[in-house]
Amino acid sequence: MFAPLQTRLPWLLLATSHLPTSLASSPTSSNYKARRMATGPPALESGIALYSYGTPNGLKINVALEELKSLGSPLTWVEHTIDISQNVQKQPWFLAEINPNGRIPAIVDYNRGAQRVFETGSILLYLSRWYDGEKYLLHFEDDRDETEMISWIFFQHGGYGTSLPSKRLLQVYETRLAEGEGRDYLVGEGRGKFSYASFSWIRAHPFSLSIPSLTHAGFPLLDSWIRRIEARPGAAKAVEGDMVSRLKGEVGWEEKVREKGRWVWEEEDGQKEERKRDEL
Amino acid sequence: MFAPLQTRLPWLLLATSHLPTSLASSPTSSNYKARRMATGPPALESGIALYSYGTPNGLKINVALEELKSLGSPLTWVEHTIDISQNVQKQPWFLAEINPNGRIPAIVDYNRGAQRVFETGSILLYLSRWYDGEKYLLHFEDDRDETEMISWIFFQHGGYGTSLPSKRLLQVYETRLAEGEGRDYLVGEGRGKFSYASFSWIRAHPFSLSIPSLTHAGFPLLDSWIRRIEARPGAAKAVEGDMVSRLKGEVGWEEKVREKGRWVWEEEDGQKEERKRDEL
Repeated sequence: MFAPLQTRLPWLLLATSHLPTSLASSPTSSNYKARRMATGPPALESGIALYSYGTPNGLKINVALEELKSLGSPLTWVEHTIDISQNVQKQPWFLAEINPNGRIPAIVDYNRGAQRVFETGSILLYLSRWYDGEKYLLHFEDDRDETEMISWIFFQHGGYGTSLPSKRLLQVYETRLAEGEGRDYLVGEGRGKFSYASFSWIRAHPFSLSIPSLTHAGFPLLDSWIRRIEARPGAAKAVEGDMVSRLKGEVGWEEKVREKGRWVWEEEDGQKEERKRDEL
Repeated sequence: MFAPLQTRLPWLLLATSHLPTSLASSPTSSNYKARRMATGPPALESGIALYSYGTPNGLKINVALEELKSLGSPLTWVEHTIDISQNVQKQPWFLAEINPNGRIPAIVDYNRGAQRVFETGSILLYLSRWYDGEKYLLHFEDDRDETEMISWIFFQHGGYGTSLPSKRLLQVYETRLAEGEGRDYLVGEGRGKFSYASFSWIRAHPFSLSIPSLTHAGFPLLDSWIRRIEARPGAAKAVEGDMVSRLKGEVGWEEKVREKGRWVWEEEDGQKEERKRDEL
């Protein structure tokens, strides 16, 4: 049931502009692409199929999966890249079988009868329930801590992301980390007690808030919290080479980040645009 | 532990413009007001303290509480009205003890050591875990249904509300209800199987989308779903006399609804405004 299979499959390489012209324009690849667009990737025999893309929202699940694995969970998964710039997530098969809301990330768990799970918060709670048997990440022994953690997951889910970032929300995190003698993590401390729901978004703060440095912007505790999570083996592996990591190494990255942020805003969430279109 | 206590306490009547001038301006009432603003309401001996206001978001919890009660749960609660137009939810005691995010609704459970729970989705899962022993509302016997339900709760929490309504999201619900032979509820059917997370927001659609009629707007299944939930004793009691119910009975209600919607948008969520203020 638990094959050692953790791969990122570029299931549908729609970025044809990066392919040799001959390949990109060949009837074969077009047919393949059209067929794949119409049906989706084949079912797995076991393990989890993750439908995602390397956005901060998608990354949340990679961080959770890698953390579970690094801490000993036998969970395996295959990642199917869903090119959101081509609206693959709006294809009928995706809406019918994966996520009726047409968003990434989503999972299908072939260990448990092709169970679909959508919305990041729901996926995190699901993974914790079924693959966190040794209380690696979320299943606190203490009910109070668990309730507090779930509140913070919903706080992130409803408030902090591409479409609704704000410095006020960053301040909520900063204040929490300053409580008492100061906190290692949002809830509890050490192994299994970090908030992977909030991590990937706050780490990507330049995209949403155009703040190049949390420290300089007045959030030193938040900054060290992010660095503490980045130093964990699972989280480090999950974010390796992602767009935040890549951009930070380049000259003039702030400008690129600003540009990329605009793209993520428009392409992934698009809720502001939706609202405009929907107004009567 | 379970005293028969379900009351709505106008704990801090800040709407002084509605009081007789002599009372509103008396030093006594000002002192009382100032003291209450500074400390918050006293602790309970048992039961749940609900800090809320009659907005669609606040109403979610009332619906859940009334439904649990109508189905036999011994849960009791006291509701403290938090006047969000006076920013009571931003007072230090509220931030420190009730909800670090400074929003309503939130609860403190005095049956379980003054446990605080914030964010509506978190409160719903909490009530289901601790007060839904007979599987009244959410604790599905079927794990698949429960996972599906949690996904839909996060879908509502992250997507559908004052700040991010869209007809596309209403269509997601409509499509779900049309699946197969058609559904009674989002997940499962009958007792204990309705989505109280989505209900109060969709019922308030005129506020967020200025759609006076779901049926005319092309969402007939959603319309009958809302009516089906409104007919349940618990839900009916929770929404009795709320602003949607009141406005619908008045002449020219569409215009009033539009006006009220603007207020809710600006006062409760204010995230759009926050974003503007926060931009560097």
